[in-house]
Order: sequence, then C-alpha cells, then structure tokens
Amino acid sequence: MRITIASGGPAALPEWQRHFREFDPAIEVLGWEAAQADPAGVRYALVWQPPAGGLAALPELRLIISAGAGVDGILADPHRPAGLPIARMITEETPEVMAEYVLTAALMLLREARLMALDQAACRWNVLPAPRRMREVRVGVMGLGQLGAASARLLAHTGFQVSGWSRSRAAIAGVQTYAGEEEFDAFLGGTDILLCLLPATPATRGILGARTFARLPQGAAVINVGRGSHLNEAELLDALDGGRLAGAVLDVFDTEPLPADSPLWSHPRIIVTPHYGATPSRRDRARHAVRLIHLHERGAALPHLYDAGRGY
Amino acid sequence: MRITIASGGPAALPEWQRHFREFDPAIEVLGWEAAQADPAGVRYALVWQPPAGGLAALPELRLIISAGAGVDGILADPHRPAGLPIARMITEETPEVMAEYVLTAALMLLREARLMALDQAACRWNVLPAPRRMREVRVGVMGLGQLGAASARLLAHTGFQVSGWSRSRAAIAGVQTYAGEEEFDAFLGGTDILLCLLPATPATRGILGARTFARLPQGAAVINVGRGSHLNEAELLDALDGGRLAGAVLDVFDTEPLPADSPLWSHPRIIVTPHYGATPSRRDRARHAVRLIHLHERGAALPHLYDAGRGY
Repeated sequence: MRITIASGGPAALPEWQRHFREFDPAIEVLGWEAAQADPAGVRYALVWQPPAGGLAALPELRLIISAGAGVDGILADPHRPAGLPIARMITEETPEVMAEYVLTAALMLLREARLMALDQAACRWNVLPAPRRMREVRVGVMGLGQLGAASARLLAHTGFQVSGWSRSRAAIAGVQTYAGEEEFDAFLGGTDILLCLLPATPATRGILGARTFARLPQGAAVINVGRGSHLNEAELLDALDGGRLAGAVLDVFDTEPLPADSPLWSHPRIIVTPHYGATPSRRDRARHAVRLIHLHERGAALPHLYDAGRGY
Repeated sequence: MRITIASGGPAALPEWQRHFREFDPAIEVLGWEAAQADPAGVRYALVWQPPAGGLAALPELRLIISAGAGVDGILADPHRPAGLPIARMITEETPEVMAEYVLTAALMLLREARLMALDQAACRWNVLPAPRRMREVRVGVMGLGQLGAASARLLAHTGFQVSGWSRSRAAIAGVQTYAGEEEFDAFLGGTDILLCLLPATPATRGILGARTFARLPQGAAVINVGRGSHLNEAELLDALDGGRLAGAVLDVFDTEPLPADSPLWSHPRIIVTPHYGATPSRRDRARHAVRLIHLHERGAALPHLYDAGRGY
C-alpha cells in the first residue's frame, strides 16, 4: 500500500517517511514526483496545495488527506477527481494547539506585544500603561466547532470572559452563547477581542469587515485564525487607521505565503503569523493519516470528511 | 495631610491627584519640586527613584512608599533618612498582573514570538515547526513569595508543568517544590523555562549566570522579572550564542531605562520589555497608598515593609 505526499516539499519527505514507518511500516511513502512517475498502488495522497492535475494522474487513488484543517488548496485543483472523499486534518492534537495559539494571541493583544516589538526594534524604552487583566476582557468566539469550542474553553478556564456565536446554538460551560443572524449584533456589542474560527462558506466570506467592526466596542481587537476569505483586508486597515479597532493578530490570508509587498506586514497594529495556529507536528499528522488509512482499509467511517454541501 | 510624589514625572501628577482625590480627598498631593520648596506637613512620599537628598529635605516625613515592588531606587539615595520605614508597592492587583505577564512571556517563548517579530519585520513568511504544548513544558519558578506563588499557580492552572524553588520550603497545590542550595541542581535539571522572581539579596546576585544555565536542559529559556542584579548579562549572551539557551524574556535590568546601545535590544533570541511586568495601574497604586496612609495614621502595622536585614 502506498501514499504520496505533497506537503512541506521534498525536504520534508524523509521526516514524513520516518514518522509513517513508526506507525505502520507496511505503508510505503512516496514523494510527489515519484508517485507521478509510478502511480501503481498509490491509494492515498496527503497534500496541502497539490500541483493541479496531479491527483487526477493517480488512477488508484481512493482518499485525499489534507495536510491541514482546511481543504482550499485541494479544491483549487480544477482537475481533482470529484468523487473522492477528502479528509480534513483534525487530529487529537489540533484543538489543543489552536486553543494555545489563540490564548497566546489574546494575551499578546493585552500586553501590546506588537508595540513592544516595534519599541524593541527601535531600542526605545517606552513604559506602557498598566495592561488590562484577563478578567476585565471579553473575548467573543465566532464559530463553535471543535476548534472554536476548545479555544473558548481554554480562554474561559484561564481567566477571560468568553462568549460564543454560531449558526445554531451551542452550549459550552462557562461561555455565554449567541446564535444566528438575529443575535449577532448583541454578541459583537459585548466583545473586546473578536476571534474568528468560522468555516469558509459563502455566508461567512468577508465577515471580518466594516459592518462587523462598527458593532464592536471602540478599541476592540480581532484575531483571525479561520480563513483568509473571512477578512476584508482593506476594511481592517481602515478600521485600525481610523482608531475603531486597536489591533489585530492574523494567521491566515487570502494569498499564502503573504506577499512581501502586503501592507499587513508593516502595520504597527497588526501581528502577522505564518498560518501556523493549528498545525500539529508532522509526527502527529502522520499518526492521524495512518489511523485514517486503517479505518478506510476496513471500510469504516472517516472523521472530519469535507462536505461540499456544508462547505467544510 | 500632604504627600509628595516622584513617579512618572510632572506629566503624571494630575492623574495621581485625581486618583488620590477619589480615595481620600483630604490628602493633598504635591509634585516633587513643590514639596521641596514647601515641605510643611509632608508626612508621606510616593517615590520610585527620588532625586538624591530630596527625602532628607522633608523634615516631617514619616513613611516612604515605593511606587513599585522594589526599593532599589530609594536605597540608592545615600542621604535617605535611615530611620524611616519603606513600604513596598504590593497591591491586591500586583500578583495577578505579574502572573499574567509571566504567562504571556512563557507562551511567547513556546510560540517563538521573537523570531516571528523578526520575520514580520523582514516581511518573511517562515513556517515554523509545530510548537510544544503547555503540558509538555516544565516551568521552574525561583522565588515563591506572593508574586512567585501567584505566577506558579496561574501557570499550573493554565496547563504548564510547574515546579518551584525557594530558600525555605513552600507548599503550593499542583506545584512540585524544592528548597535550599542542596535541591537547586535537581530543580534546574527539570526546568525548560526558568522564571526568576527572587528578591534582590547578596545571595541571589548574578544567580542567572553560567553556573545556573549549565544545569538547565539544553535549549531551555529564561524569564527575568526579579531584579536586574539577578542577571549576568554577558553570561546570558554567551549561553544564547552558544546554543545552551534558546531564548530569554527580560523585564528588569541593572540600568533602567536600558541604554540604547545595550546588545540585549537587538539580540535575536531576547525579548526586552520596559519593566512593566508587575506595575499595577496608577489608580490601583493610589488606592493602596491611601490605605497605607490610613493604617499609618492610626498606628497600625503596615504590610510589605522593606526589611534591611532580609534584603527585601
């Protein structure tokens, strides 16, 4: 049984091979080019942004495994074999890794980490006003799936005031939840740090935009770890420059890698991180892929399959 | 009754006056120069680094209140009236503010925040390896006074593995504690992030130095929120450049403000913050000072008095 990998480039292949060997030595791990040249027996592909047409060139392919939680890079291939299932990479580790990223981002906003980094770069001793304490700050989590719920729980457990908003009502201990369009404005009005962990659907496209920002309290901040398509970059820059928003932490972007000439990089109120909020280690992802392969081989149901109707 | 203030400079005086008025309008708040010119009735001084000789020029002074947790700037005045008590600024808010600084610093170390800030400054999309999770990381807290204990508790509550070390044995739920010189090496051997919250005494001077670093696991990190005198800067730079240590977050320095030509500012593995780890808001400090004044006026015992014999 063979799997081909397009994630991390050729340099990452030996590490992927080592991890797969640890969890199932019977699985042969091929690089992308090797599988394209000799696709016999390649039933699985672990990919992030596979070269267009490459998946269609694997006639025995049975399951596409995304190397991350999202599948945009796979859907972008117009020649992708449309009938094949796509498994999203949501490992046991993913919610925990995401929640810790989000907690770090929220605390960095409280402590003005961007301003401090700019001060340090300028060798400038600039004593800032005392920070707000966690218990004084309300974090609002948009999207209460597995990642959003784990993040809300950790933030509340650590000491923030936390509320959540989702399409249909969710219940999370210690978290005030809102549901649907009609409760969206009330949710935003009580949110000092707005966290986006929504799925990418037509309905959520551009949701981090002027209309939403205008309903947040003056001086609120935004963390986007959902999808780049959630954010209207121009409207974010307007809201920051106009003083409506005080800061943003962005981990996902419409174009990745974020181009070097993007104004986001140098903005004094934006922290840019390279889409690594919820990426588990390669070892953890290899273990999860092996588990998916074993389930698939015996015909069992697979967790976190992409659903085209739902959009995630 | 009058108090004079030397903290934050003349620009901060109106804010101090507003806060004192809130908590006791009967206390007259004078700037430093005004009190020097007219010291009658000035029984209290709230100071951080008072100009040398200034305290001695206040004949009715009865209590010196430090504007921060430390008293080094007051002891530095050779003409300080030696018989007067000095109250350290440990408010109800201080341990919480410190603990949240420390949690932020530990998470920033896990997430390579310094490296990410340098990448952002260079508009460089540099995908980092997956971070360690909190539960995989052992934080060792040196100094288990009120601030150290609060920090250890928050770190453990949030998800880190936490141990503590102090001169005499302390007991903190969920925290493994070590005591005395004979248990120091065992403590260090199990510490991935070493946090210094010791008092400044001759025995702890330079404790963050080569001997200590050599006993930490390879690739450990250091957070100093104790005193600048705890750190041997040259030995820290050696340990970072030699790969012994992976990173440091420094909030306190021998010379403050940290001089613009200090090599600490530009080091790629050091995060510098401007001594604001545990500074409560001015309002909170004014409330605490008013409380101390009321206690002193009725002859009651004062909390957190500086003890020259103990050194803090």
